[in-house]
Amino acid sequence: MTTTDARPETAHGPHGYAKEKDAHLKRLRRIEGQIRGLQRMVEEDVYCIDILTQVSASTKALQSFALQLLEEHLRHCVAHAATEGGEEVDAKVEEATAAIARLLRT
Amino acid sequence: MTTTDARPETAHGPHGYAKEKDAHLKRLRRIEGQIRGLQRMVEEDVYCIDILTQVSASTKALQSFALQLLEEHLRHCVAHAATEGGEEVDAKVEEATAAIARLLRT
Amino acid sequence: MTTTDARPETAHGPHGYAKEKDAHLKRLRRIEGQIRGLQRMVEEDVYCIDILTQVSASTKALQSFALQLLEEHLRHCVAHAATEGGEEVDAKVEEATAAIARLLRT
Amino acid sequence: MTTTDARPETAHGPHGYAKEKDAHLKRLRRIEGQIRGLQRMVEEDVYCIDILTQVSASTKALQSFALQLLEEHLRHCVAHAATEGGEEVDAKVEEATAAIARLLRT
Repeated sequence: MTTTDARPETAHGPHGYAKEKDAHLKRLRRIEGQIRGLQRMVEEDVYCIDILTQVSASTKALQSFALQLLEEHLRHCVAHAATEGGEEVDAKVEEATAAIARLLRT
Repeated sequence: MTTTDARPETAHGPHGYAKEKDAHLKRLRRIEGQIRGLQRMVEEDVYCIDILTQVSASTKALQSFALQLLEEHLRHCVAHAATEGGEEVDAKVEEATAAIARLLRT
Repeated sequence: MTTTDARPETAHGPHGYAKEKDAHLKRLRRIEGQIRGLQRMVEEDVYCIDILTQVSASTKALQSFALQLLEEHLRHCVAHAATEGGEEVDAKVEEATAAIARLLRT
Repeated sequence: MTTTDARPETAHGPHGYAKEKDAHLKRLRRIEGQIRGLQRMVEEDVYCIDILTQVSASTKALQSFALQLLEEHLRHCVAHAATEGGEEVDAKVEEATAAIARLLRT
């Protein structure tokens, strides 16, 4: 770990998700395409229920992205804070739980 | 519209949401902007939790759009089927409930 | 309909879900059992993740109950209001959409 | 506890939530009361929308309980695994993320 990871952005690495950056961007571009697809559907007067189905698919894709990001965050930032000890880990866990609560409430 | 869309529901617009088309498109373009914002955040290595907050905002925006669409659908298509009588209304209600279930499961 | 249904609660029958009352009560008693199961799990120090799995099952069961109720409501109350015409249907649809929004936000 | 539970994690309590046990049980008993309240509502033919509102409240209460449990789990089990090092933390994070995914999908 010490030799291969120079951690330029200090304490918790460039961020948990850095390694997966390309995969994340690809995923987000696909979601962007889905949203543009929704616009086309509205423009072409597609049946409401079919639009709702596509909205559900986009929401699901956004949540998958969030879960992936969250997993990396727990693995890197939260776990890292735990090894450092002290109050940092409590703050990180609280912050992560608040983020999960926001995801749940949508 | 008349030539390309022979659907019987022309009476209440091609679909319930036709009247709100511009508002819907505006809303969807704003969501598209949020998704592009997410891409920038990932590219600029923004802190994971801040990205998750933005994901929650986008998901919430998508769900508001869905609720709006659903309300118009109930008001126009489902209510229209009810006035027609027969089995059509049962089929419409079942279809709408399935769409709501899909939204709930995401 | 006219002879068998005296509609004591006026306009929209005793309520859409009256016919399904027994099924609903059975379902709710099962959910109550799940919640008591959760208490036992906490008392017996069951592993957190297993408790969370049981919470997800209970939440899913509550949402299925809600969807069933909603479907009956749309079929009876909303559709009935539609046949009556007037502003009643708008009010009913708005009310139903607000209820769906509350379900989505949890 | 000592005789029936030989688990190594005794160091930080039998589980993360042990300290909060009474608060959890109190919360769950309140939810159980809400579910019994729902049964009464169905029995008394309360208006569907009012029942749906109560379902939303119960679901929200269940999710708050889940979030509390999750926070303690992250703080104790996941953070503990992180200090131990090795592959254990990866397994714990994966397991926690799967639990969050199940909560999100309901």
